[in-house]
Amino acid sequence: MPTDRKAPDTARRSQPTRQAILTAALDLAAEVGYRRLSIEAIAARAGAGKQTIYRWWPSKGAVLFDALLALSENPEGSDGDVELPDTGDLAADLKLVLAATVDELNNPRYSEPMRALTVEILENAELAATYRERLDQPMREMKKRRLRKAQDAGQLDPDADLDVAVDLIWGPVQNRWLFREGPLTAAFTDALVDTALRGLAQASRRRTDT
Amino acid sequence: MPTDRKAPDTARRSQPTRQAILTAALDLAAEVGYRRLSIEAIAARAGAGKQTIYRWWPSKGAVLFDALLALSENPEGSDGDVELPDTGDLAADLKLVLAATVDELNNPRYSEPMRALTVEILENAELAATYRERLDQPMREMKKRRLRKAQDAGQLDPDADLDVAVDLIWGPVQNRWLFREGPLTAAFTDALVDTALRGLAQASRRRTDT
Repeated sequence: MPTDRKAPDTARRSQPTRQAILTAALDLAAEVGYRRLSIEAIAARAGAGKQTIYRWWPSKGAVLFDALLALSENPEGSDGDVELPDTGDLAADLKLVLAATVDELNNPRYSEPMRALTVEILENAELAATYRERLDQPMREMKKRRLRKAQDAGQLDPDADLDVAVDLIWGPVQNRWLFREGPLTAAFTDALVDTALRGLAQASRRRTDT
Repeated sequence: MPTDRKAPDTARRSQPTRQAILTAALDLAAEVGYRRLSIEAIAARAGAGKQTIYRWWPSKGAVLFDALLALSENPEGSDGDVELPDTGDLAADLKLVLAATVDELNNPRYSEPMRALTVEILENAELAATYRERLDQPMREMKKRRLRKAQDAGQLDPDADLDVAVDLIWGPVQNRWLFREGPLTAAFTDALVDTALRGLAQASRRRTDT
């Protein structure tokens, strides 16, 4: 968000301040929780002025959102479309991706701010719209691109609804994490991928089975 | 919760008051949202004293939780185990159940308090434990009992992990509802059931397919 409003030079000069603010927001969210997180405390921890933060972000939710977005961005800072791995083996690729997701969700530094942000998203329609536009939709499109390639290669039913497929593969992970309904392990996500892909397998192969 | 602490006679006498309080809590949660819901407003709407409410419930979250629990309980007031339908046709039974769930989630009278309670559960560990014990776990066991019967009848893979199966069938519905990620329709849940059950189908039948 901030870089949209500034000339490149200014952006480059204030990059360390921005990074310090994002890091402070993540640290504090993990330490005190979202409710007790304040712009004041973020500013103090980052060694920045409150006004600097308010100039760049409208709310603590927006700061935290950018902090999480920066965490999940390509470390090389690429702005290009990120793609899911494609080795041609869809199951292996998805297991890799979900195992990495589970690692993130089991890491309090990521999961506590993410949980706090999730609560905020459920209550705050404006932040929810930003989240959908900037994170959820691009991620969903990326997932569907990978699944479409598998579909084109005949590995998935040509009639499979790819939105249903995304919900089927990723929904249970998010849900189990959010409600702490069971252990988040690679064994769980492996079973999930195998079962979901069997269900999404090509109809023509399936028909020989009935 | 309240009936645990009172003699049966008292419980019977105060049943109308209890019901008035639960109805008021649901109405107000739908009208003003959870954050602005107060014990005071519930008491006023129900024509009851604040002290009456505090004698029976420790917090507004606990009132709302009991109100939702009462909504989802057997209308005849049966305390026995509720079971999912079992016509022998697992897919048809699950489609019926999920279509009813979708109807509930599309009804603001149920979904707005439920969303409010969900936010509270994500933040409040004590309420989360009560929720898991009183609602989530019994529901999960009920779902697994139905799936186990199908498994015993050879309709599901004997090696299928029934917790993964529950997550696969119900997780995407809750997730799509919570994050408003797409329309909650019977078409969606039908596709979900068909795909998930295909994935969970008996291994011996599946093997002829490879």
